[in-house]
Amino acid sequence: MDDFHDKLKMPVHRLEALGDGIFAVAMTILVLELKVPEIKSNSWSDFMEAAREVWLDFLCYAISFVVLGIMWFGHKMMFEFIGRMNRYFIFLGILFYLVVCLVPFSTKLLAGHATEWYAITIYGLNLSLCNLTLYAQWNYGIKRKSLLEKEVPQDLLNYANLLFLISPVDYVIAIIFGFWFPWVSILIFVLTPVLYLLPGKMDKYLP
Amino acid sequence: MDDFHDKLKMPVHRLEALGDGIFAVAMTILVLELKVPEIKSNSWSDFMEAAREVWLDFLCYAISFVVLGIMWFGHKMMFEFIGRMNRYFIFLGILFYLVVCLVPFSTKLLAGHATEWYAITIYGLNLSLCNLTLYAQWNYGIKRKSLLEKEVPQDLLNYANLLFLISPVDYVIAIIFGFWFPWVSILIFVLTPVLYLLPGKMDKYLP
Amino acid sequence: MDDFHDKLKMPVHRLEALGDGIFAVAMTILVLELKVPEIKSNSWSDFMEAAREVWLDFLCYAISFVVLGIMWFGHKMMFEFIGRMNRYFIFLGILFYLVVCLVPFSTKLLAGHATEWYAITIYGLNLSLCNLTLYAQWNYGIKRKSLLEKEVPQDLLNYANLLFLISPVDYVIAIIFGFWFPWVSILIFVLTPVLYLLPGKMDKYLP
Amino acid sequence: MDDFHDKLKMPVHRLEALGDGIFAVAMTILVLELKVPEIKSNSWSDFMEAAREVWLDFLCYAISFVVLGIMWFGHKMMFEFIGRMNRYFIFLGILFYLVVCLVPFSTKLLAGHATEWYAITIYGLNLSLCNLTLYAQWNYGIKRKSLLEKEVPQDLLNYANLLFLISPVDYVIAIIFGFWFPWVSILIFVLTPVLYLLPGKMDKYLP
Repeated sequence: MDDFHDKLKMPVHRLEALGDGIFAVAMTILVLELKVPEIKSNSWSDFMEAAREVWLDFLCYAISFVVLGIMWFGHKMMFEFIGRMNRYFIFLGILFYLVVCLVPFSTKLLAGHATEWYAITIYGLNLSLCNLTLYAQWNYGIKRKSLLEKEVPQDLLNYANLLFLISPVDYVIAIIFGFWFPWVSILIFVLTPVLYLLPGKMDKYLP
Repeated sequence: MDDFHDKLKMPVHRLEALGDGIFAVAMTILVLELKVPEIKSNSWSDFMEAAREVWLDFLCYAISFVVLGIMWFGHKMMFEFIGRMNRYFIFLGILFYLVVCLVPFSTKLLAGHATEWYAITIYGLNLSLCNLTLYAQWNYGIKRKSLLEKEVPQDLLNYANLLFLISPVDYVIAIIFGFWFPWVSILIFVLTPVLYLLPGKMDKYLP
Repeated sequence: MDDFHDKLKMPVHRLEALGDGIFAVAMTILVLELKVPEIKSNSWSDFMEAAREVWLDFLCYAISFVVLGIMWFGHKMMFEFIGRMNRYFIFLGILFYLVVCLVPFSTKLLAGHATEWYAITIYGLNLSLCNLTLYAQWNYGIKRKSLLEKEVPQDLLNYANLLFLISPVDYVIAIIFGFWFPWVSILIFVLTPVLYLLPGKMDKYLP
Repeated sequence: MDDFHDKLKMPVHRLEALGDGIFAVAMTILVLELKVPEIKSNSWSDFMEAAREVWLDFLCYAISFVVLGIMWFGHKMMFEFIGRMNRYFIFLGILFYLVVCLVPFSTKLLAGHATEWYAITIYGLNLSLCNLTLYAQWNYGIKRKSLLEKEVPQDLLNYANLLFLISPVDYVIAIIFGFWFPWVSILIFVLTPVLYLLPGKMDKYLP
C-alpha cells in the first residue's frame, strides 16, 4: 500500500468521451427546436409560404450545427497534445461544456428573433464564450508539462491562437452591427465558420 | 520542439464516437415524436380507433429507425478502411451528421402528412442527402493514401457504390410517385431498407 | 491489393458503443416524461396532493429505468462472449434497439393509464419484445464460431436462457391479470426486475 | 469447453461508457428546460424584464450542470481504482444513474418554485442521494479485492469520504433553512460546488 507515491494516470479519454456525448446531444437537440409548420393545403403556394416561415430556423440550425462541429474539431485537436488531466483542467472543461450546452437555447432565441439586437447579442456572446472557455482550457493544459503529451510546434500554436480568437472578434463585430443592421450580423454568423474551411498552417500536420 | 516534423496521428476513433453518439440520439429522439393518443374508454373499439390514429406514426418511426441503423452500419464499414482523418474529411463528416440529425424532423413531417407530395419529397430528399454526403465522405477518404488504412478490394468497392446509390435512386422514384400515388411512395420507403438485408458480395468479407 | 482475401475484423466495439448511447439516451429520456405537477400552495396537504398525482409516474419511471439497466447488463454480457459481428447480427441488434427505444413511449402510456388493460398489454409486450429480440441476437451469435470469442459454458448457457425467458413469461401473466386485476400486473412489473438481483449461477463467473 | 473455470474479465469500461452517456444526456437535457421568454419589444427595459424572469432558471441550470460535472469527476475517479465489476456493483451503478437522471426534473422544480420548502427539499434530497448512492458503489467496490485494480492510499480514502459526505450534510442544512429562509438554501446550493474547487489532498495524486 505504500508504493503509491507515483501519481494516478488520469488519461483524458473519459473527458473526451463525455465531451463527445455532450456535443452529440447538443447537435442533435438543435433539430428538436425545428417545428413542423402548419401547411394549409398541398398547393405549391401554401408549401412556399410554410417554407418562408421556417427557412430562418433551418439556417440558424445549420449555422449552429457547423459551428458546434468546428468546436468539436478544436476540442478534439486539443487532446492530440494534452494527454492527462488534473482537477482544474477538468473544471475548465466542464465550464466549456456548460456554454456549449447553451447553444441550442441561444439558437432558438436567434431563430425566433433574428433581427433583434438582444438575440444577436446573446447568440454572439454564447459562441464567443464557447471559444474563450476552450481557449482557457487549452492554455491551461499546454502550459503544464505534466499534462502535455506532445509539444505544440510554435507555428501551429500561433495558428491555433488565431483560430481561437478570430471568432470572438467576428462575433463582437456582429453584435455591434446587430443594433442597426441585423442582417449584416446574420451574414457574419454565416461567414465565420467558412473561415475555418480555408486551408491553413494546420494542414501540414494532418494526414 | 523541433522534432515535430512528423504528422499528427489523427485516428478516426473520436469522429466515430461522435457519430455513434449522434446516431444513438437521433434514433432515440424519433420515439419522442410518438404521442400517446387520447383513448376515450377501455373498450376494444376505442383502443382500435386510437391504434388506427397512430399506426402510421409507428410505421414511419420504424422505417426511419431501420434506415438510420443501416446508415450507421455503412458509416461503421467506412471506418474499417479509413483509419486517419484530416480537416476536409471531418467537415464532410459533419455535413453527413447534419443531414442525419434532420431525419427525426422529416420523419415527423411524413408521419403527419404521409399522403402529401411535400412530405414525401422532403423525406425522400433527406434520406437521399444522407446517403450522398456519406458517399462523398467515403470517396474523399478512399482516394487519399494518407487516410487509408486498408485497400478496398475492387469487387467490394463496386458493391459499396451500388449500396450507396440504390437508395437515392429509389427515393427519387418515390418522390415522383408522391405527386400522384403517395401510397406507392410509402411502399418504396418500406421496401428500400429491405434491399440491404439481402445477402451480397459484402458478406464474404464479414466474419 | 490482392492480399485482401482475409476477412475484415469487424469487432463488436462500435455496436456496443451505439448500444451504450441508445441505452443512455433512452434511460435519460424516461425522466423527460416526468412533469412537474401544479402545486397550489406550499402547505403540506397541497404538496401531498401533488405527490399523490405523480407517485405512479415515478414508480413507472423507476421500473423502466431498472429494467433497461438489467437489459443493458444482459447486452453487455453478450459481448463478453461474442467478439465479432456480421450483417445479420447487426440487423438483429438494430431490431433490439428499436424496441428498447420504444420503452419511454410505453412507460408514458402505462404511467397515464396504469389500470387499463391496453396500457398493461402494450407495456408488457414491449418489455417482452426487448428480451426476445436480444435473445434472438444472442442465439444467432453464439451459434456461429466465426463470431464467438469465448465458448459459453453449458451451465451459464442454461442460466442465461432462464434469465432471457423468465421475463416474457412474467409479462404474459401480467398482461392476463391486466384484464381483471390491473394492480396485480403492476406488482408483477415491480417484482420481475427483483428476480435479477437474486444470486445465481452467473456470479461464479464474475469477479 | 471445460477450460472455462477462470472468471470473465468484466472490465468496467462499458459501465463507464454508459455513465458518460447518461451524464452527457442529463447535462444537456437541463438546457431543454430553459424556455425562451416572451419579449414584448426590443427596448432595453423589456429585455431586462425578460432577463429578470429567467435569471433564476439560468442559475439553477448552472448549479446543476456544475454539480453533475463534479459527480462525473468523482465517478471517473472511482474507476481509476476499481477495474472490474460484478452484478451488485453494476446494480449500485444503475441506482446511482437513476438518481442522476432525476436531476433535470428536480432542477426544473427548483427553478419554478425556488422559494418553496418542497422544491428545496426535493432538490437537496436528490443531490444528496446522488452522492450517497455513488458512495455506496465506491464502498462496495473498494472492499472487494477481486474488483480493485489499485489500492486506495489511506489519506486519499479519508479525503474521498470527506468529499462524498460534505455535500449531503450541506444539503440537509439547506433543506432545514428552506422552511424559513429559502434564499439561504439557494446560497448553500451555489456555494457547495465551490468547495470542490479548493485545492486538497487529492491533487498530489493528480498529474
